[in-house]
Amino acid sequence: MVIRRLLRRAVRDGMILLRNRQKCSTAWRATHYCSALVYREHTHNIDTLRMEQLPLPPVGDCSVRVHMLAAPVNPADINMIQGSYPILCPLPAVGGNEGLGEVIEVGSNVTSLRPGDWVVPIDAGFGTWRTGAVCEEDELISVPKDISVLGAATIFVNPCTAYRMLRDFQTLSPGCTVIQNASNSAVGQAVIQIAAALGLKTINIIRDRPNCTELVDELQSLGADYVLTEEEVMSTGLHQVFEEVPKPKLGLNCVGGLSGGLVLSNLDYGGTMVTYGGMAKRPLQIPAKSFIFQDVTLKGFWLTQWKRKHREDKAQLKAMLDAVCELMRAGQLSAPHCVQTPFHQYSHALQAIIQSHGRKHVLIM
Amino acid sequence: MVIRRLLRRAVRDGMILLRNRQKCSTAWRATHYCSALVYREHTHNIDTLRMEQLPLPPVGDCSVRVHMLAAPVNPADINMIQGSYPILCPLPAVGGNEGLGEVIEVGSNVTSLRPGDWVVPIDAGFGTWRTGAVCEEDELISVPKDISVLGAATIFVNPCTAYRMLRDFQTLSPGCTVIQNASNSAVGQAVIQIAAALGLKTINIIRDRPNCTELVDELQSLGADYVLTEEEVMSTGLHQVFEEVPKPKLGLNCVGGLSGGLVLSNLDYGGTMVTYGGMAKRPLQIPAKSFIFQDVTLKGFWLTQWKRKHREDKAQLKAMLDAVCELMRAGQLSAPHCVQTPFHQYSHALQAIIQSHGRKHVLIM
Repeated sequence: MVIRRLLRRAVRDGMILLRNRQKCSTAWRATHYCSALVYREHTHNIDTLRMEQLPLPPVGDCSVRVHMLAAPVNPADINMIQGSYPILCPLPAVGGNEGLGEVIEVGSNVTSLRPGDWVVPIDAGFGTWRTGAVCEEDELISVPKDISVLGAATIFVNPCTAYRMLRDFQTLSPGCTVIQNASNSAVGQAVIQIAAALGLKTINIIRDRPNCTELVDELQSLGADYVLTEEEVMSTGLHQVFEEVPKPKLGLNCVGGLSGGLVLSNLDYGGTMVTYGGMAKRPLQIPAKSFIFQDVTLKGFWLTQWKRKHREDKAQLKAMLDAVCELMRAGQLSAPHCVQTPFHQYSHALQAIIQSHGRKHVLIM
Repeated sequence: MVIRRLLRRAVRDGMILLRNRQKCSTAWRATHYCSALVYREHTHNIDTLRMEQLPLPPVGDCSVRVHMLAAPVNPADINMIQGSYPILCPLPAVGGNEGLGEVIEVGSNVTSLRPGDWVVPIDAGFGTWRTGAVCEEDELISVPKDISVLGAATIFVNPCTAYRMLRDFQTLSPGCTVIQNASNSAVGQAVIQIAAALGLKTINIIRDRPNCTELVDELQSLGADYVLTEEEVMSTGLHQVFEEVPKPKLGLNCVGGLSGGLVLSNLDYGGTMVTYGGMAKRPLQIPAKSFIFQDVTLKGFWLTQWKRKHREDKAQLKAMLDAVCELMRAGQLSAPHCVQTPFHQYSHALQAIIQSHGRKHVLIM
């Protein structure tokens, strides 16, 4: 919040551009200014995003200064810039919601963080596409330093979404089955790995594509028990699968439309389907009998909301991060295959996600 | 179960028709035989249903003999005969699932029932369209005799469905709002009355129809706070309503399709929609954002399943019946407006429900 207020003031006062850059030493500049990707309007033209020099306020008693190490480019970041996300930042704003920072300096009243700690922002809207930030202590939470930079920079959205969905909606014991679509997404891959670590079986639905066998192999190498295309599920059903594993009590849907229907219709009696995305941009179609005679429950999950609800309960947030880190340390959960993009080459990363091609990009500061 | 076994045996042995009816006294016949509406195949041709004389087995130590007083004709009864209901009885079978009987005779080990008690069958598939029955004690539960015959004969499906849906899915305190469609159905009318008794506000959606004003008046006289047609909700929304009452935490959907969407889209953040019917025979269409950003939960309710789950917990069943009877006694819940049809004129009642015209019929034995 402090950052956003200062940013608005800086823009108003015309202080955004450092006019005498050559006069400043690198160390002095890193303490007083940061480079940040700023947007000044909600627009689909992502080229309006500009790298700017923003002043950093001095560190107060309860605040900390961090140097950002890495920040991914997620679809929600783009939706936020475009103005189509349910949470929008006051303009002008810095892009990016997720990322890893290192604490450089702490105020005299700060107790939970020390210089050298790795930290991630708790709430959406932090503006992680920047080299440095000064913020309140309680906007951040520390993460262990014995996982990779990429793992830590991408831990607090996708793996935590997978972790919560596998824990919070059904009581699943080893041997139980989970069915999902969008199985190749970052969350989908985390679901496969965390489920395997918990002894759960996974049925993973993917879209048909040219490199299908390759993808099936890749997901199976992560621990997927069954990987089937939508067409295969529609044409032959899952009868054969259900001779080997029980019907799923939990379904995870990130697609909607027809694909969501495939998850729903293969749930066990009394099962729960959790929707956390709508990639197909088509509504779920649900017959009354699914509710009445199959007793299914449909719920949604949005980690941002979950984190806001548990904002004051840092022990709960910490427990989740510790559990996910422990899986990473044990080699049971790998960081996503990312393209590491130098911060100044940000436009490659933005174009890649807008055109939905290739791997996730992580900006390296 | 005993009844059904004997019925099958009687049919096999050609005993169904009493060949020497004139030899039997009325009292002897009532003890040893009953008239029943029997179907021998699952068919959409309801004319195949026949009034037959069925032998009654002697009353055993743990069984009771009842004289049926009244039994409604509900849509589920027809679906069961047609073979399209998820619960089907072994054939041949007696039609009807709900009804009121009077206990005539009890076995020596029967403790919960006495001659003269009013009783209703607990489970679906009892075959209530008959003049008498002999069954196990635990197939029946008693109802108080200080409510009307019609009230008691129709208490255990529709009012109990309304009662449970208002209690089991959201914590509702006086002043909270409930939104429903199919508001003129038997369940819908019970919802209006029970909600009013609990101090809840109701928003009631109806289909547009010629006698709309009359229906609005009728539902308001039952306690409905707002009655609107689907067209009104679609064209003007409920903004004005929500200036007076809070957005509903609970929505009840018996229609599906567009109408179900109107219930869903007007729910409060975190609300629950319960589907208990699909009259429009069209699926619900639900966008992902309802789940993710509105945090709605969708569930189903089927009283038959609820009763099976609580079959052993007669105290729970009794508590529900007592609560609903208390509302009836207090004049807060009226028996549905029914056409009382003499049992032998059953074909009128069946035709009426198949052609979906007019009031609910209750067969009077």
